[in-house]
Amino acid sequence: MRAVVMRNQKLMVDSIPEPVPATGEVLVRTLACGICGSDLHALKHAEKMVANAREAGAPFVMDLGRDIVMGHEFCAEVLDYGPSTAKRFASGTRVVSMPMLMRGERVETVGYSNDFPGGYGERMILNDALLLPVPNGLSTEHAALTEPMAVGLHAVMKAQLSASDAPLVVGCGPVGLSVIAALKLRGVGPIVAADFSPMRRSLAEKMGADHLIDPRDGSGYAELARVAAGRSAVIFECVGVPGMLQQILKGAPVGARVVVVGVCMEDDLIRPMLAISKEIQLQFVLGYLPNEFADTLTAIADGKVDVAPLITGRVGLDRVAWAFDELGNPEAHAKILVEPARA
Amino acid sequence: MRAVVMRNQKLMVDSIPEPVPATGEVLVRTLACGICGSDLHALKHAEKMVANAREAGAPFVMDLGRDIVMGHEFCAEVLDYGPSTAKRFASGTRVVSMPMLMRGERVETVGYSNDFPGGYGERMILNDALLLPVPNGLSTEHAALTEPMAVGLHAVMKAQLSASDAPLVVGCGPVGLSVIAALKLRGVGPIVAADFSPMRRSLAEKMGADHLIDPRDGSGYAELARVAAGRSAVIFECVGVPGMLQQILKGAPVGARVVVVGVCMEDDLIRPMLAISKEIQLQFVLGYLPNEFADTLTAIADGKVDVAPLITGRVGLDRVAWAFDELGNPEAHAKILVEPARA
Repeated sequence: MRAVVMRNQKLMVDSIPEPVPATGEVLVRTLACGICGSDLHALKHAEKMVANAREAGAPFVMDLGRDIVMGHEFCAEVLDYGPSTAKRFASGTRVVSMPMLMRGERVETVGYSNDFPGGYGERMILNDALLLPVPNGLSTEHAALTEPMAVGLHAVMKAQLSASDAPLVVGCGPVGLSVIAALKLRGVGPIVAADFSPMRRSLAEKMGADHLIDPRDGSGYAELARVAAGRSAVIFECVGVPGMLQQILKGAPVGARVVVVGVCMEDDLIRPMLAISKEIQLQFVLGYLPNEFADTLTAIADGKVDVAPLITGRVGLDRVAWAFDELGNPEAHAKILVEPARA
Repeated sequence: MRAVVMRNQKLMVDSIPEPVPATGEVLVRTLACGICGSDLHALKHAEKMVANAREAGAPFVMDLGRDIVMGHEFCAEVLDYGPSTAKRFASGTRVVSMPMLMRGERVETVGYSNDFPGGYGERMILNDALLLPVPNGLSTEHAALTEPMAVGLHAVMKAQLSASDAPLVVGCGPVGLSVIAALKLRGVGPIVAADFSPMRRSLAEKMGADHLIDPRDGSGYAELARVAAGRSAVIFECVGVPGMLQQILKGAPVGARVVVVGVCMEDDLIRPMLAISKEIQLQFVLGYLPNEFADTLTAIADGKVDVAPLITGRVGLDRVAWAFDELGNPEAHAKILVEPARA
């Protein structure tokens, strides 16, 4: 089948072996798959990503000497079943799934695996037990946004917000927008959000942010103090580049809680004394729980989260490498979907 | 009066102006004052401490061009009162106090101030409202341990431990020992504690640690998993040197909460991806609340916390500089008390 493979830290379209579903697995056709910032990171910092995974004692670590087909934000349709599957869904049923595959003792992430191709290929194998049917009437491309939007919901759930908390979202790329949508979904407000990009601030407003800040013109911390006086600051770090944590430690008010959703893959310098003198809490978060993933799909299907504004481009396999470059420009794009069937 | 002053990053005994209590203040005679690790840091890293305080927007920042009399872990006796004081305690009453002085708009820390000498001087002024009488029968030197022991109680309270949590104390200097005592006081266990020093491990056992680890021989994380299987790790970082946070991020199990009690005054490098992949929480803490300070005094007076093993030396003003050097050797000392009246 055709797929975009990561090979020697480059993306290229090639023909790869057809995936074959084993016990408890399903063969699906990829309909749409979002390009994630983590994929951009992975392409650029693959070696660091692997070193980090090893250091963290991850059960599976990619072999960069072999091909990897990325793509973990997908909507697909059922084609065929492997042995011992419940066959809950007829062929052609559209599904989404957490991008996890458990084969025997192995647990791998679909899209960061050498053996299980992700959504930048024509077909994938998924775990039968993890499939969620796309509710009738929900478009394929909106369903494909389930995964990135679940990231925001998980971050908001981990924050354990109470009525006396007030959120500030730092960075309005896809991760920040996902957090804003989840805050809105959970009825938390007012939502202050900061980004240098006019396009991203506009998207943040569409997703539910109440007060938008251009950091060149003002401080998100000051705005938060103004619109939510007396409440505790909960800062969602959604940028994920070196220096952001230290910048937040400097700007954050005393007692702030920081939820670190942005994925910084490089070493980062902080001044602990700043965090100590303000008794700051840093809660690092990753991914989502199965119920958060399912709740996100339902919220999108019920129209409680409108993901339409996030989709700014659609490409076939031949233009994925171009799309990776294009996503470097925040004025042009938020989420680009890969549609393997597109010419 | 005589005092040990910090001048040009050196300690020397000199004669300084007699402090005069203003409205709401009390003049006291210093009976005993512990030497704190923060004071050792301050002497070594004074410029960094001041830069940090400025950066964090502290209301008051020391002027290093002027003398500072350190010492904030004290027991004193009432000598005289300033205007508008309740005069609750007769002259000669022994008292302890949080080392805070509010004069008008100014809030300063006794012991880190240019104008309010700390406990390395013969006399101090304190806030009348903050004075706590030393309960009858409690020795002066044990009462002087109230402040450092309150630090541990605060850290443990901030950790909000539940029955499903299990603590690991990394570093058994005075801060770690204080945390161990507070864990014991709160009935939390088993307590695993790690330190390279045999003397400190022995003190940790006396303060209530159940399982002692020499990091050369084994891992505190493995020991915690062994003695508290299935419980969530809550790691108390009580070392406070660069590199410790990263080391903990590497060793900590998934979902660990880290309470950062050790005060690292230098920039520190962390790998956020490690923290993200394990969803680690870093809770930085500082000081204590007034009720925690009072509860600590009561716990010591009631014999629920035995601080006797911590006191390993007593010096007069002339030997404070020597004691600062001596505290660099963990085999020799835990807490040295300064007694200004001692010859």
